[in-house]
Amino acid sequence: MDGKDLLRQHIAKTASLTDDEFDYFFSHFKSETFKKGQVIISEGDVVEKEYFVLSGCLKAFFVNDNIKMHILQFTMPTWWTSDYAALYNNTKATICIDCISDAEVLSISNEDREKICNELHQVEHFFRWRTNKGYVAAQKRLLSFMNNDAKTRYEELLALYPALYNMVPKHLIAAYLGVSRETLSRLYTSSK
Amino acid sequence: MDGKDLLRQHIAKTASLTDDEFDYFFSHFKSETFKKGQVIISEGDVVEKEYFVLSGCLKAFFVNDNIKMHILQFTMPTWWTSDYAALYNNTKATICIDCISDAEVLSISNEDREKICNELHQVEHFFRWRTNKGYVAAQKRLLSFMNNDAKTRYEELLALYPALYNMVPKHLIAAYLGVSRETLSRLYTSSK
Repeated sequence: MDGKDLLRQHIAKTASLTDDEFDYFFSHFKSETFKKGQVIISEGDVVEKEYFVLSGCLKAFFVNDNIKMHILQFTMPTWWTSDYAALYNNTKATICIDCISDAEVLSISNEDREKICNELHQVEHFFRWRTNKGYVAAQKRLLSFMNNDAKTRYEELLALYPALYNMVPKHLIAAYLGVSRETLSRLYTSSK
Repeated sequence: MDGKDLLRQHIAKTASLTDDEFDYFFSHFKSETFKKGQVIISEGDVVEKEYFVLSGCLKAFFVNDNIKMHILQFTMPTWWTSDYAALYNNTKATICIDCISDAEVLSISNEDREKICNELHQVEHFFRWRTNKGYVAAQKRLLSFMNNDAKTRYEELLALYPALYNMVPKHLIAAYLGVSRETLSRLYTSSK
């Protein structure tokens, strides 16, 4: 399936667009390819776009003053990513996004998204529900971080991203869970 | 300012509605009052409504198997609250919402919100941006939980809710921060 079909299928789950409307919407996206390790957003950048992933895997993360990495999100095909705090508030990036593998994405600027949301009610409907789902996922992750031990968070992670364990280096899974590499090895062994 | 004016002013920051459109939108809200301590949503409830707070303060929380309370959110006037995971996914509540003080709210059902979002594009626009802001706040809180110590989280909390310290019992502030009452006392003393 090409990128246009993938996006169309993704949007059709939430919103009804005619072929002409979808073509118009799609004309505002730019196809981009990135290499494994390539940085898409760096801390301090002006953030003007969000990304719909077609293939590969991205990570959103930050590195604190003690050079410890925290991973906020892995982004797999048909998921969206950006530094939304920076994108929505027109502030500088406070997180980084880079590529765990080679990746193909479709990007759309903040300005174009707002323009089309204004022009096409169904596009606004789509983006409202996209963010509703993101909000619920972020709250769920927060609740889990507040309450669950590393083993439960590990099991939730595998349920959320079943393909992840084979795609992502173990030290990145540990950084998502907020545990050491050694703790992750113990969780992995005990969950087998 | 009465509740209708407060909601109108709140929405006017994001969306343009004529007087007739706003009156129609407002006609779907129900005015409700709650007493201090009253429970609005209990774990396991069917969740059909969300709440716009006019006066008072609500808390969204859950109590884990060890009877430890975690507070997800305080909701002050002009903020919205519900168990959105349950509301959006039509599942049972996994958190509770109750009243820290007497409270007046406007409630709207999931069904009515969707109906009006469909009828009035600007209402859909408003709710998209309402959730965008909630998403960014939830991600910010998650990042803070992952990375910041209790003292930084305490200072962030006071910046987010400046009026909170006088409105909310200290044990609830401790439950929001995920620290003991004793740790909170030390933070309070050292921040003065």
